[in-house]
Amino acid sequence: MANPVLVELTRGSMVESVHRGSIAILDADGRMRLSLGDVESPVYSRSSLKPMQAIPLVESGAAQAFGLSDEEVALACASHSGEPMHTERVSIWLERLGLSESDLACGAHASRYEPVAEAMVRRGEKPTRVFNNCSGKHTGFLTVARHWDIATNGYEQVSHPVQQAVAAALRELSDAKELTYGIDGCAAPNFATSLTQFARAAARMASPIRLSAERAAASRRLLSAMIAHPELVSGTGRACAILMRAATGRAAVKAGAEGFFAGWIPTSGLGIAIKIDDGAGRAAETTIAAVLDALGLLDYSEAARKILRTPILNTRGATVGERRPAAALANLKLS
Amino acid sequence: MANPVLVELTRGSMVESVHRGSIAILDADGRMRLSLGDVESPVYSRSSLKPMQAIPLVESGAAQAFGLSDEEVALACASHSGEPMHTERVSIWLERLGLSESDLACGAHASRYEPVAEAMVRRGEKPTRVFNNCSGKHTGFLTVARHWDIATNGYEQVSHPVQQAVAAALRELSDAKELTYGIDGCAAPNFATSLTQFARAAARMASPIRLSAERAAASRRLLSAMIAHPELVSGTGRACAILMRAATGRAAVKAGAEGFFAGWIPTSGLGIAIKIDDGAGRAAETTIAAVLDALGLLDYSEAARKILRTPILNTRGATVGERRPAAALANLKLS
Repeated sequence: MANPVLVELTRGSMVESVHRGSIAILDADGRMRLSLGDVESPVYSRSSLKPMQAIPLVESGAAQAFGLSDEEVALACASHSGEPMHTERVSIWLERLGLSESDLACGAHASRYEPVAEAMVRRGEKPTRVFNNCSGKHTGFLTVARHWDIATNGYEQVSHPVQQAVAAALRELSDAKELTYGIDGCAAPNFATSLTQFARAAARMASPIRLSAERAAASRRLLSAMIAHPELVSGTGRACAILMRAATGRAAVKAGAEGFFAGWIPTSGLGIAIKIDDGAGRAAETTIAAVLDALGLLDYSEAARKILRTPILNTRGATVGERRPAAALANLKLS
Repeated sequence: MANPVLVELTRGSMVESVHRGSIAILDADGRMRLSLGDVESPVYSRSSLKPMQAIPLVESGAAQAFGLSDEEVALACASHSGEPMHTERVSIWLERLGLSESDLACGAHASRYEPVAEAMVRRGEKPTRVFNNCSGKHTGFLTVARHWDIATNGYEQVSHPVQQAVAAALRELSDAKELTYGIDGCAAPNFATSLTQFARAAARMASPIRLSAERAAASRRLLSAMIAHPELVSGTGRACAILMRAATGRAAVKAGAEGFFAGWIPTSGLGIAIKIDDGAGRAAETTIAAVLDALGLLDYSEAARKILRTPILNTRGATVGERRPAAALANLKLS
């Protein structure tokens, strides 16, 4: 059974391309509130997993021991654009750990923020590891290793205690019995869950009343740090920042590579997991915007409305089509 | 009925993303030689249409009247990368028409070839219209208008005689009764056909024995110019160039936006049309490579093999998965 078409792109009077995918929304009691498509097969949540991957950072006491600010906690959950607000904070944080960029296991890539990327090309500067969108997550892993006074070298190996702590937290939050993993773009393990399991874990973070005091506090701090600093979690003009600002404090959302998107709704205790079959980020953005809209979480925000229905422009700036929710996505109703 | 999965991407031991799509391969007698998925609904072929859009340029005598070289004919069929080999030739050609860049109806975008794009950023240069990947196609349209001594202004309007000549040629080659159109990224009309109709038109160009002498000569010249100049049709390191070189003169191929790919096989008189449902270029590249491989047209070429099965690397350069033909694509057999 193919998943339903969630998003379509038009050109002139025709639909030109379509994106299929699936959505699971659960509450903290584990009740499925919305299910579309296959929500049981394991999928990688990629960078949408970062808020879960940051649980040991706060839960272990490492964040407190190293005096992490909410900005730094937000960066631990971030796929950042490599703007100065990101790279400078990560560099200072690394210094405070007595470490440096060379301790990061992630590779370098150019800033995703064009003015920064272009300025670096003009100055003949090469991006370094701190520009990797995951450098905050990695610095979070290193913080836990330093707090536990164990080897920082090899912290990205699945057998390292930091990654095992991530896996344990994810298993407990998601009720997943076993977690397979793949290697993410940043060289860290990425644990696979079903959409149901992921949304369950997100819901338990969003409404952590039945969790241990430490995990509940960690969940609250991670989500409130994300919500307080939308641009640190992503970057200037990015979908996560725009949607979190439009939700005015009521939602944390996090994009992942290959068409994943996740949401945490503390006000209603919901967890959201979205996967676009073909891995298209453009369709995942439309889908999370439609879900937030259905939940009444998109206040009037022109930028957020443009993620929900996106004009397609030609190279002269004329509108020639649009990207929009398809029928299955246009009238979502939660049970 | 959903189209079959043609391409899959793995990470670790799991398939992470899949691309559905359809394929039609016809011969010049109009016989369907291979059909996968929906090959009857109209789709935009986008830049894969360029060799058809260039038919009036040669057929009308305009190319001969203005002494066009094979390099310039190849550029009329190109989605070029905006390298000096492309932009300088288009500029000289425009001059020969007594026209300039400001006569092009397409907008500007940065060179797709990173060393050129980066060098322009370093020098503080903005891309101009000649850098638009379609600037050769547009110069071809202008050449026809100059040859016919009609207004060049408005040549990109669907009602202009040049666009009507394109539509007439496409209708005749494809047997399409009516052609709807949308506006392409470059502001020119893009006429929709079914995959069957497109592949029929391509097959008739590849084996033009039943066409008028002028159209047959035009078809032969367009395809031989593309095959002779693979990098002018695309750019350094691009899939079209790599695959045409691997086919050693036996195939012309042309990518289109939103997951279209087309092929013309003069040696066997076949026309190929591919559309990936979700518009992913990466999947269209895997699919055309698999089709060429099934036709015995990919001589051993490491670069072409890497389009057929593409390692997925993380930011440290380690292989963490691969993009590859799915089952439906792995064992194609022509009737």
